[in-house]
Amino acid sequence: MTTDTITTDASRSDFSFHLAARDGAARTGEIRMPRGVIRTPAFMPVGTAATVKGMYPEQVKALGADVVLGNTYHLMLRPGAERVAKLGGLHKFMNWPHPILTDSGGFQVMSLSQLRKLTEEGVTFQSHIDGSKHVLTPERSVEIQNLLGSDIVMQLDECVSLPCEDKVAEKAMRLSLRWAERCKTAFGNPAGRALFGIVQGGVVPALRVESARELVAMDLKGYAIGGLAVGEPQDIMLAMIETVEPHLPVEKPRYLMGVGTPDDLVEAVSRGIDMFDCVMPTRAGRHGQIFTRFGRMNLKNAKHAEDPRPIDPQSSCQAANGYARAYLHHLVKAEEMLGKMLLTWVNLAYYQDLMAGLRAAIAQGRLQDFIAETKEGWARGEPAGEPA
Amino acid sequence: MTTDTITTDASRSDFSFHLAARDGAARTGEIRMPRGVIRTPAFMPVGTAATVKGMYPEQVKALGADVVLGNTYHLMLRPGAERVAKLGGLHKFMNWPHPILTDSGGFQVMSLSQLRKLTEEGVTFQSHIDGSKHVLTPERSVEIQNLLGSDIVMQLDECVSLPCEDKVAEKAMRLSLRWAERCKTAFGNPAGRALFGIVQGGVVPALRVESARELVAMDLKGYAIGGLAVGEPQDIMLAMIETVEPHLPVEKPRYLMGVGTPDDLVEAVSRGIDMFDCVMPTRAGRHGQIFTRFGRMNLKNAKHAEDPRPIDPQSSCQAANGYARAYLHHLVKAEEMLGKMLLTWVNLAYYQDLMAGLRAAIAQGRLQDFIAETKEGWARGEPAGEPA
Repeated sequence: MTTDTITTDASRSDFSFHLAARDGAARTGEIRMPRGVIRTPAFMPVGTAATVKGMYPEQVKALGADVVLGNTYHLMLRPGAERVAKLGGLHKFMNWPHPILTDSGGFQVMSLSQLRKLTEEGVTFQSHIDGSKHVLTPERSVEIQNLLGSDIVMQLDECVSLPCEDKVAEKAMRLSLRWAERCKTAFGNPAGRALFGIVQGGVVPALRVESARELVAMDLKGYAIGGLAVGEPQDIMLAMIETVEPHLPVEKPRYLMGVGTPDDLVEAVSRGIDMFDCVMPTRAGRHGQIFTRFGRMNLKNAKHAEDPRPIDPQSSCQAANGYARAYLHHLVKAEEMLGKMLLTWVNLAYYQDLMAGLRAAIAQGRLQDFIAETKEGWARGEPAGEPA
Repeated sequence: MTTDTITTDASRSDFSFHLAARDGAARTGEIRMPRGVIRTPAFMPVGTAATVKGMYPEQVKALGADVVLGNTYHLMLRPGAERVAKLGGLHKFMNWPHPILTDSGGFQVMSLSQLRKLTEEGVTFQSHIDGSKHVLTPERSVEIQNLLGSDIVMQLDECVSLPCEDKVAEKAMRLSLRWAERCKTAFGNPAGRALFGIVQGGVVPALRVESARELVAMDLKGYAIGGLAVGEPQDIMLAMIETVEPHLPVEKPRYLMGVGTPDDLVEAVSRGIDMFDCVMPTRAGRHGQIFTRFGRMNLKNAKHAEDPRPIDPQSSCQAANGYARAYLHHLVKAEEMLGKMLLTWVNLAYYQDLMAGLRAAIAQGRLQDFIAETKEGWARGEPAGEPA
């Protein structure tokens, strides 16, 4: 373990990253900006359409989330970036005065929209909501994120599906680099906010390294690894992190996009990742699946139907410690909103608790022990015992 | 106005009704039972399937609701009354330690189930969920409500659709009286709990009066007026209340089932009704419609799309005072859970505030002024003015 503080030039910007401790490749610290502090490693709940589904914003904050993610694709289509700006920006709009990171829209254009046409200039697509035609260029993506008032803006990139031919990955990576330059120019250097670049290159190590080096040369304020967690095995994803990580500057935050399971998080943290986002805890919760100290649980399963025990009496989350599993099972079966609300809450609480545990373990220089204990808990499952 | 206290024999039962004040036909008081006090006039949020849809139980209580309604029909089918009993009863199951009133199941059997067969003995029907066959008799309805642990149990009745022939209404009314006797026998006299009878008789005054008199002769602990608010004009409903009310004992609570709009509530309270339940505030909220001091509002309406004002800055409800209408409009359009959660909250808060206002006005002997001011507010709509 080393404890040190690496601060970016505070006179140049009030957006800064401060490392507090390292443990192996893992790091803990703070990203500071006018709207608040993001304690890293951080998990960002996804607030796709200006809401973390099924949660009041105060609840999200109370769980320990310092930042949420907003989706440019969804927000540009509805309610529209200009409208959000007119209403005072996304923070005010959604009652979240804390930091917000927005993605660039590129990933959802590829996964959700219809009739896409990709050119050097950008991407033209039809809305999945009403079929209306839209154009997203690097400049427009930055403009939208500026209109939203995002604290951390992501570059527009081209994200290919895996598996893909090396040539396809290479072409997308080089286009993404050119778009990063254009995003940098469009973004400029506004005080207190940051533009992050996105490392692409599929699963080809040489491409990933080239992408990372080129982006680092642009001197952006943070770097994401994109194009992973799109269906490839976990070991491939981890290998790509290990390939890229040595080429990223230690003094800037690293963000692994769209990841992941609790196991993905601990493995990526131990490989030097600082930030994550994923719909998994919210989406799984809406479908009755939860993440706990004892591993996963599916509340739809009939075995919970008469179980009076709470999910986890030791959890600090009221949804996890205060409701019978039998009741949660009933709510899930009856497709009641409260079931989705409670299980989303359970999952986001567990994710935030896990990140807090990782941060503390790194600070104490005992990350590997913490990870071993955590995985042991998942594998062991619940202690046997009579329902209360 | 008269202020007085009429107490039922407390030595016989710890379920009691205490009138604190009267103003014309209207009354305010308290229904006391071991699980808590219901301040009357009371609006009971509907918790159909052991949840007030989209609300945490603590929120419901915090709004001022003293009692919620549970639906025997839904709960007998899923999760099943025996299962709820095994898990410690409905209060424990749904984390609502306060009073619960359960209906008898009769109304939903008529409106939701398939292949009904009604006999003197009871009603046979198929579940709307899985087609399974069930039998509901007066005895089984009471048994189910006992298994749930309901504080206020409703008799099984036959509820006819309006309009209907007088002979049909008469037949259903007389069957309901015979079922009331059977329910009374089945219920016995458990401490701290009550069985209420239900006045039927369609829109035929003579039948309503006969039903009321016969039920009063059974000396039940409270009386409901059923079979109204099923599509008939409001003036017919109010006329029926006026017909029945003089025949109900002043010292027992009166409950108008399934009612209604805010206007229905104030009119019925001024005619001597003490208790109400209705899905209107919760269901309307899920569909973007709200009730306010200024009348109804539909958040789906495009006029709200860029309105930064909250619903009502003077409301004590955070959903009403803390979120921009433009945001609520967006959530409704995007069909986000949070929209349903917030607008349900807005409506239940308004309903509880209205009941608190009615109780205070009756206590002060100024009910007619309060009603006039309230209706003036609904009719006037919002004060004109620039969005903040």
